[in-house]
Amino acid sequence: MDLHILDHRLRVTSISKTGLEQYTHPLIKLIFLRNRTRCKFFSLTETPENYTVVLDEEGFKELQPSEHLQVEGSTWLPLNVVSNGNASSSSQSVGVTKIAKSVIAPLAEQHVSVFMLSTYQTDFILVREKDLSVVVESLVEEFNIFREEGGESVPVHSQDACNGLQRNVHPVLIPENQFCVMSLDPDTLPAIATILIDVLFYSNSPKPGASIDQDMECIKFFSFSMIDGYVSLVMDKEAQKQFPTDLLFTSSSGELWRMGRIGGQPLGFGELQIPSFDHLNAACIL
Amino acid sequence: MDLHILDHRLRVTSISKTGLEQYTHPLIKLIFLRNRTRCKFFSLTETPENYTVVLDEEGFKELQPSEHLQVEGSTWLPLNVVSNGNASSSSQSVGVTKIAKSVIAPLAEQHVSVFMLSTYQTDFILVREKDLSVVVESLVEEFNIFREEGGESVPVHSQDACNGLQRNVHPVLIPENQFCVMSLDPDTLPAIATILIDVLFYSNSPKPGASIDQDMECIKFFSFSMIDGYVSLVMDKEAQKQFPTDLLFTSSSGELWRMGRIGGQPLGFGELQIPSFDHLNAACIL
Repeated sequence: MDLHILDHRLRVTSISKTGLEQYTHPLIKLIFLRNRTRCKFFSLTETPENYTVVLDEEGFKELQPSEHLQVEGSTWLPLNVVSNGNASSSSQSVGVTKIAKSVIAPLAEQHVSVFMLSTYQTDFILVREKDLSVVVESLVEEFNIFREEGGESVPVHSQDACNGLQRNVHPVLIPENQFCVMSLDPDTLPAIATILIDVLFYSNSPKPGASIDQDMECIKFFSFSMIDGYVSLVMDKEAQKQFPTDLLFTSSSGELWRMGRIGGQPLGFGELQIPSFDHLNAACIL
Repeated sequence: MDLHILDHRLRVTSISKTGLEQYTHPLIKLIFLRNRTRCKFFSLTETPENYTVVLDEEGFKELQPSEHLQVEGSTWLPLNVVSNGNASSSSQSVGVTKIAKSVIAPLAEQHVSVFMLSTYQTDFILVREKDLSVVVESLVEEFNIFREEGGESVPVHSQDACNGLQRNVHPVLIPENQFCVMSLDPDTLPAIATILIDVLFYSNSPKPGASIDQDMECIKFFSFSMIDGYVSLVMDKEAQKQFPTDLLFTSSSGELWRMGRIGGQPLGFGELQIPSFDHLNAACIL
């Protein structure tokens, strides 16, 4: 198997629920107006606690500092595992189960934090840039490691160093709602713009006359990402009903996902953090 | 002729150019998400100086106070002149030339400020609520005056009072660009959402790689209004090129307008203010 260190330098941020409104302007720009930004890696995920935004440095420039924006101090690099020698998105991605066993477990043993980011197209393992040498050293026996640089794949060999942290154990919670993972042609994004804006920015404000049904067994989770021009959406079945069926596509099996949440509250970055639910789901299978 | 005092209580506000970003959230809600707001009268006009937003009290609630939002202190009422006894939008609207002569001139003699708001569908004459008795007294000889109340047209008769102010004279400037006045079915608004968002909120930030062409002979002016479900757009020919031709419609003659601007800077509310260019155009004809 090959492990590719992709050519994006990422920041991991979170916007508070109450602060989202004041980031409407940059977020709409990043989501809908691709020709106004050089951002090539953007991911927005709504969780019950906040909005997690992962984006490259071009995108990060759009976010003005405020009390509502928390920025994790590190630069993160996305890793991608592929089963053949081709790092392009058309190549065979490797399942999450295998990634968990062959990447996350060895890194956990070295106390390296990872941030998993799953999209319709692939699964990214984000590691801190400063941990890169440990990552390479830990994985070089199992993988051919390449670094993507300006479209070229450059082989990487082992380097140095090691760090250490304690790993905690958290309970796993499984909310009731079922999720689907979808994609769409980025050129058809304008066709769902108002629905997406409604769901992303206004779903917390009730519609006039509408009753608020609070189903406490369900969890609020919505994810939008656009990475190298590929769009990925994760939403529950209720949210999906608002979108036209002819534009969003899902895998042929159309499977629905349940979420496993580790702990009932946000995990610190010092811990092994796996916020993307399908990986948790896979972790449950493990 | 009939003069109808419509059943909207309006606020006239302006948002500074630099402050628009922080009003993206409420403005997008008011423009695109009709079922999330009870606002029935909304108008946004970009001028070289600022964004003028006229909206009813339901809409006004959406705008958080800030240093970037200026709110004119009065409540304004929209008047509508119709040539037959029917105030519905299907009735015959009266041309601006006639309005200027029969409404604005008599009110100017009484030193009553008016705010003209032109849409594709009709022309509104906004007067301050506190001036209403003078308005009625000044116009009752020429018009049958009705007050719209919950869908009913109630006849209004003369009342009392008078006020007095000095009227200034300003030079008229005529920029180079040509404007079109258009409408569209509000149900097709989502189809132009991203283009409209781009033009409204992002046209001041250059696209990556695009050169900035500053044509000093042209004026920045864009107007969107949605009043009782009717959409009206005013933009210059350059902006129009960005929109699909099949959704926006214009009058059969498809005439283009030139703008006459009174003074080179914003007029105070104490003066006879006529910001809508086609009325100025008409005023020039006068």
